[in-house]
Amino acid sequence: MTDLPIREELRGIQPYGAPQLDVPIRLNVNENPYPPSEALAADAAKAVADAVAGLNRYPDREALDLRADLATYLAGESGVDLTPEQVWAANGSNEIMLQILQAFGGPGRRVLSFAPTYSMYPEYARNTATEWVTAPRREDFTVDVDDALAAVVEHRPSVVFVASPNNPTGTAVSLDLVRALHDASPGMLVVDEAYAEFRRAGTPSALSLLAECPRLIVTRTMSKAFAFAGARVGYAAASTEVVDVLRVVRLPYHLSAVTQAVARVALAHAAELQERVEQLRSTRDELAESLRSLGLQVPDSDANFVLFGPFDDRHAIFRALLEHGVLVRETGPEGWLRACVGTPEETETFVRALRKVLAREPGEDTGT
Amino acid sequence: MTDLPIREELRGIQPYGAPQLDVPIRLNVNENPYPPSEALAADAAKAVADAVAGLNRYPDREALDLRADLATYLAGESGVDLTPEQVWAANGSNEIMLQILQAFGGPGRRVLSFAPTYSMYPEYARNTATEWVTAPRREDFTVDVDDALAAVVEHRPSVVFVASPNNPTGTAVSLDLVRALHDASPGMLVVDEAYAEFRRAGTPSALSLLAECPRLIVTRTMSKAFAFAGARVGYAAASTEVVDVLRVVRLPYHLSAVTQAVARVALAHAAELQERVEQLRSTRDELAESLRSLGLQVPDSDANFVLFGPFDDRHAIFRALLEHGVLVRETGPEGWLRACVGTPEETETFVRALRKVLAREPGEDTGT
Repeated sequence: MTDLPIREELRGIQPYGAPQLDVPIRLNVNENPYPPSEALAADAAKAVADAVAGLNRYPDREALDLRADLATYLAGESGVDLTPEQVWAANGSNEIMLQILQAFGGPGRRVLSFAPTYSMYPEYARNTATEWVTAPRREDFTVDVDDALAAVVEHRPSVVFVASPNNPTGTAVSLDLVRALHDASPGMLVVDEAYAEFRRAGTPSALSLLAECPRLIVTRTMSKAFAFAGARVGYAAASTEVVDVLRVVRLPYHLSAVTQAVARVALAHAAELQERVEQLRSTRDELAESLRSLGLQVPDSDANFVLFGPFDDRHAIFRALLEHGVLVRETGPEGWLRACVGTPEETETFVRALRKVLAREPGEDTGT
Repeated sequence: MTDLPIREELRGIQPYGAPQLDVPIRLNVNENPYPPSEALAADAAKAVADAVAGLNRYPDREALDLRADLATYLAGESGVDLTPEQVWAANGSNEIMLQILQAFGGPGRRVLSFAPTYSMYPEYARNTATEWVTAPRREDFTVDVDDALAAVVEHRPSVVFVASPNNPTGTAVSLDLVRALHDASPGMLVVDEAYAEFRRAGTPSALSLLAECPRLIVTRTMSKAFAFAGARVGYAAASTEVVDVLRVVRLPYHLSAVTQAVARVALAHAAELQERVEQLRSTRDELAESLRSLGLQVPDSDANFVLFGPFDDRHAIFRALLEHGVLVRETGPEGWLRACVGTPEETETFVRALRKVLAREPGEDTGT
């Protein structure tokens, strides 16, 4: 690749990221199909015009107004009261994860997660020189409490990552598991709730455990429920003490004044965005049923995507769907594919295309 | 501080950052005193309204339009032609520095710089587990070529950071030094040109050496000359091969669609911003002369700030200036203070205040 003096573990590695292809129906990166409203865009334009007038100055390093708005939002969403000082924000939840590993992971330390899980986790580990270890999930992609605790005893991780709902399987974990992992683990427990707003009725949020679990961090993002992937706003809720540690490793002024301003506008429009979330949850459940009616397995999903399969040759299915103008994702366990929930029309087109693809004889030339 | 399981080297550390005090004249963080124009703010509002309509999608991961605009700007500013693929952008040049150390530094590796220099450098090193070493500058804050090469031989650094102009001294380095350091060093050479647009006539930019120095990276920022500190846009110019390495360690979608949009608007307004830079250079030279006329030493500055001193008790001077409503920075070598260049009015007020402070008897109660 290069004779530059790069770190050995980076040699030959390609930049992370799903192929960005220009096709009619993109269901590959779990985006929200509904763009922010014109009213939100107009308010954002006004807020940015104001912010630009002061852009010669550095932004509020602490982003306290934004963190207060996020705390208010979380109280409404999950009924858990948090102070602004218990909330931390950064450029996407991936920057939050990086900061967590810079503070609590790093050389000589280990981060544990439960595979299959989010494919960026090992990259955060690599970029912070933290050792990455996994324990397997059950065959149905749930996490077995005894297995999880045994993995903690075996690996003594400084940090445990649990995605709930998990990416790419859509599987949420129980509060009992979170509590047990926290109490058994010597280090920090991060519950990654990037997709939490899409959870089904009765699925809990780990936010409710913050008061009793001092080493718990719950991460969230505005990318999904807020349809704000392009704005890059992730956040975390934890004790003030944990947030103070993240403040030590964050780059000063990491969050731009413009990002803070547009994020606050989106939070002010949370109600309208919530309607879209309801729509997506219902489309998600219909999608899962449609795929099952095609004879596929679909683990119960609390997210805005579903995993479906298994296929003998998932790549052939992926390419055949692409021929129909539908982009899904080849990720996660071998034999499975992931698709996110689009509009009802997009979702219907996807199911129709998949039905056609599956109707072909196995092994038939797909023409790609 | 905490009994959380944080990394030992972080225990007891406070978050980095200058005190943010609400005083009439803030000359402490090298901000540009001239806000972006109303025309720029209006264009930014329009661009953001457009961007918001697509914010449900992830941003262009490669930010290629922005990188093309930055390449065009650099060609105009320094006469060096670069392709968009030779330019890299991130959330402030501090994120660029972090990525450089993630790729080329890290555990078991060392970064060398020449002290006194920018106080964030050791934080980038700490956050990437890179060993931080320094060699001293001469008494006049210039870098001696022989001493620098001896330090390279002694420390065998994987990365060398040279700020030019240097923060907090304002001192630029010669191209001969850059060339010699590059050729002697086994690793990467980073010339941090955050303040390059303020350099005096005849002071070169290391951009002109990129073609002959494959391990050279020149970093820049929109915070200073573009009066865009609040927008957090830093960038680097290097070979395509070096940029490709940074692409491996960057967090995917690190640069928001909104940031990309407003940065492109500011670049389209580069001409109007350039007039302000001319004004600041001239005010800077007047400020240096005024301070010298008070009997102080002021190293020649190629930046938008000056270092002045020495004082027996710089903290007393800092506090006495604060009483007059002027905030400067206690940073850099003991006995010296740093002030950035404000408007002519702000600069005049600062000099007048300092004259009064210095006219007091040494040891007199400053009332603070």
